[in-house]
Amino acid sequence: MNESARGRRRSGGRDMRRSERGTGATRGVHVPYITRGIPTYDVMGEENLLKIEAAADRILAETGLEFRDDPEALDLWRRAGAKVEGVSVKFEPGMLREIVRTAPAEFTQHARNPANNVQIGGRNVVFAPAYGSPFVMDLDRGRRFGTIEDFTSFIKLAQSSPWFHHSGGTICEPTDVPVNKRHLDMVYAHIKYSDRAFLGSVTAAERAADSVEMVRILFGADMADRNCVIMGNFNVNSPLVWDGTMTRGMREYARAGQGTILVPFILGGAMGPVTSAGAIAQALAETLAGCALTQLERPGAPVVFGNFLSSMSLRSGSPTFGTPEPAIGSMVIGQLARRLNLPLRCAGNFTTSKLPDAQAMMEGTMSMLSAIHCGANYILHSAGFLDGLLSMSYEKFMLDADLCGALHSYLKGVQVDDDQLAVDAFAEVGPGNHFFGCTHTMGHYETAFWDSELSDNEPFEKWEAAGSEDAASRANKLWKRRLAEYEAPALDEGVDEALRDFVARRKAEVADMWY
Amino acid sequence: MNESARGRRRSGGRDMRRSERGTGATRGVHVPYITRGIPTYDVMGEENLLKIEAAADRILAETGLEFRDDPEALDLWRRAGAKVEGVSVKFEPGMLREIVRTAPAEFTQHARNPANNVQIGGRNVVFAPAYGSPFVMDLDRGRRFGTIEDFTSFIKLAQSSPWFHHSGGTICEPTDVPVNKRHLDMVYAHIKYSDRAFLGSVTAAERAADSVEMVRILFGADMADRNCVIMGNFNVNSPLVWDGTMTRGMREYARAGQGTILVPFILGGAMGPVTSAGAIAQALAETLAGCALTQLERPGAPVVFGNFLSSMSLRSGSPTFGTPEPAIGSMVIGQLARRLNLPLRCAGNFTTSKLPDAQAMMEGTMSMLSAIHCGANYILHSAGFLDGLLSMSYEKFMLDADLCGALHSYLKGVQVDDDQLAVDAFAEVGPGNHFFGCTHTMGHYETAFWDSELSDNEPFEKWEAAGSEDAASRANKLWKRRLAEYEAPALDEGVDEALRDFVARRKAEVADMWY
Repeated sequence: MNESARGRRRSGGRDMRRSERGTGATRGVHVPYITRGIPTYDVMGEENLLKIEAAADRILAETGLEFRDDPEALDLWRRAGAKVEGVSVKFEPGMLREIVRTAPAEFTQHARNPANNVQIGGRNVVFAPAYGSPFVMDLDRGRRFGTIEDFTSFIKLAQSSPWFHHSGGTICEPTDVPVNKRHLDMVYAHIKYSDRAFLGSVTAAERAADSVEMVRILFGADMADRNCVIMGNFNVNSPLVWDGTMTRGMREYARAGQGTILVPFILGGAMGPVTSAGAIAQALAETLAGCALTQLERPGAPVVFGNFLSSMSLRSGSPTFGTPEPAIGSMVIGQLARRLNLPLRCAGNFTTSKLPDAQAMMEGTMSMLSAIHCGANYILHSAGFLDGLLSMSYEKFMLDADLCGALHSYLKGVQVDDDQLAVDAFAEVGPGNHFFGCTHTMGHYETAFWDSELSDNEPFEKWEAAGSEDAASRANKLWKRRLAEYEAPALDEGVDEALRDFVARRKAEVADMWY
Repeated sequence: MNESARGRRRSGGRDMRRSERGTGATRGVHVPYITRGIPTYDVMGEENLLKIEAAADRILAETGLEFRDDPEALDLWRRAGAKVEGVSVKFEPGMLREIVRTAPAEFTQHARNPANNVQIGGRNVVFAPAYGSPFVMDLDRGRRFGTIEDFTSFIKLAQSSPWFHHSGGTICEPTDVPVNKRHLDMVYAHIKYSDRAFLGSVTAAERAADSVEMVRILFGADMADRNCVIMGNFNVNSPLVWDGTMTRGMREYARAGQGTILVPFILGGAMGPVTSAGAIAQALAETLAGCALTQLERPGAPVVFGNFLSSMSLRSGSPTFGTPEPAIGSMVIGQLARRLNLPLRCAGNFTTSKLPDAQAMMEGTMSMLSAIHCGANYILHSAGFLDGLLSMSYEKFMLDADLCGALHSYLKGVQVDDDQLAVDAFAEVGPGNHFFGCTHTMGHYETAFWDSELSDNEPFEKWEAAGSEDAASRANKLWKRRLAEYEAPALDEGVDEALRDFVARRKAEVADMWY
């Protein structure tokens, strides 16, 4: 990490403490991103990490990857010295590691509100909403296809919560807008209804280009061309295939100096081995190749090492999420990414539950904590998923946001100084007396503990008298209140108009496509 | 760890793999205890650990602890060189550390079925049900006072689950039995309905003695006098007070060579400082003094370093559980216990939710994972709690048991060898093809992943067609089925009769007490 990043972190810490004192609460203090006060959880020793790296090298050298429908990518690989035969590309051990050395270990993604710029990499952690569900759900209306109204609502809910640092991307698919035009509405909605950083479109090279063009309007071309102001999240077509749709899109972002997040999609037993070590070796091979390609396109382009491991039901073959194997596997992926000195995207809040119930939060918490422990710098899918990534739930979104809030406290770790050690309080209180009114308690009680907005901590009788509500019902009320109270952050009129003109013009240029 | 413990662990590992192959499933393979394959999560550096130890030393030397209503304990302290004035006892820095050196780092608690003996300490993890609730709950009948029938039902549910290693103690208070006699029924129920190790009574010295007497009948006096066959869980009356009821009971266990678990009860801001560092220093002081007292009573007596940290609501002053501060604080406590070379009891599955809902499993999972990560060797409260420790819930018990099962897989970590790395599978499958039918998948799919009994992984439509049940409803059905199918493990007729005689005789000796 460079000096300016370090300075930034220190100042972030000071600002946070100051605003806590200012508001007198641990509820609702927005920080632009978290800087972790606890180490990563490194579960694997050096010897086994080397074995996994060697297995990835062997996959890259012997089986190779396919780069389909992207002749320019094949040219880049050929020039870099890889062995290209048709769409198959094989790599000498060590070659990709050498190429990714030009990628930054940490970079800034700028937001339209500079106070919300995020620092990605190092000890920093950024939370973004979930991404990509075709369906949405709420307790009143059940499951249905997502619309642009739902999409906008989730942006508003994220923006109103202090616990997200990033607006995300395709929070849900707005299925009421044509497939070839919805990226314009999505990017516009992120810009209009949030003042945080966000992700652009990746589903076609020209949609990636539109996304980049829109941030050039927003930030001004000069600023946008010299800084990372947008990122795209690109998936491997696992196992071992990078599709041209993805590689052309990610090269588009990289060429513009914008950020890319490159993520395998491995459901163990389907797109990769059922055993964790094998799936991790494959993930390393796939991600490393993607990261290297961005560096061949533009050395120094910001790129994030992504990870997505999951498991399957042994009985039905259905994918499973929030299970123990990917949770532990993610910690290993974190170690591997740090050995490459690349920022990390890992895991998120996953579950197969169809309701915001006990299963949803058991699986979601296990999965989200693994992202925290593995050292992920950018946590996509921090909030909202139910139904095995297929549905965004309004209630789950609020519950997960609450968990994200708790994780702000968790990541601070335990501070140790004379004040935190309460050295004088013991003498003041003495054995057998309570600490309720003592000087030390009075000085700290307002900020000492995480204060959940959704958990009910009242005595049973009081909870019962108030209607015996469960957490999902409380979440249902809360998202409605938040939407009703939402106020959009100010956006320059001229910029807004220019963006709306761009969207209208691009929409008029082509016929609607619905699939 | 000594050689025999190491041999034991290796053999435990072998047995586990063998039984997995035998049954062909990751569901329901009972192991006597888990030996962790992942390291502990050490979140604090040496410098801060030393500061916390110094703060504890200062509390012990300057403020001291009170040992009330136990003149013999005061005598022991006086003889050991502590500074005793009235009931106040102060300790020179380092004195208690020296005394606890005689305590074993690892020991065996014997079960009546030797296959269920548990190894406490080292890399081993033992799960036991929750302990001490006056109330019980289920979805059909709501909240009510616990009875001996509830108590027995929970023992049966734990015994029928492969995911517990220990039967626990006061799973709920059997409030329909007189206070001064219920320990007899509880100990008898553990012996009769479970063949796993368990905890005896601690609420009075003579009840502790009764508990020890009953295991002497069960195991035979000779065996019971030479081995740890029962343990008791004793609480500090935090802050800084050890009550005579507790110290006389724990000395009773220690004198008989039986195990004690010594646990502060610190709700931050009430029984200790609101700041984590201070609460941890206090916990260290309190527990260390308790552990040392057992060693003064009988050097070498097995003792477990216990921990209980919690937080409170900043608005109402209500205790809160499953919150981030105690979760991180527990990791520090784990580091401190290992520096003392003592087995550790930590955290458990805590929540203030009044229902087996999203809140319950969010808080419970965060809290339970902290027990796993901090290196706890004995995890009391693994299953059942709702309502801030006040209620045992039948449904929550089943959900938590499922989480305990998942943690069996989690604690294995990621195995790395050629087979796990699937080196040949990549060549067999190749880019773009799926792994469903490949040789490697066929050889592993039955045992590769944790197979939850309660999580629904089906597609939405199938789940909906099956009745759209939430996790709590599935848990409701499961506990009823388990109780209906329960079969008691065989118990020698003569032993059973001798135990029943003992219970009847002791009950006849005194009048009922109801409070």
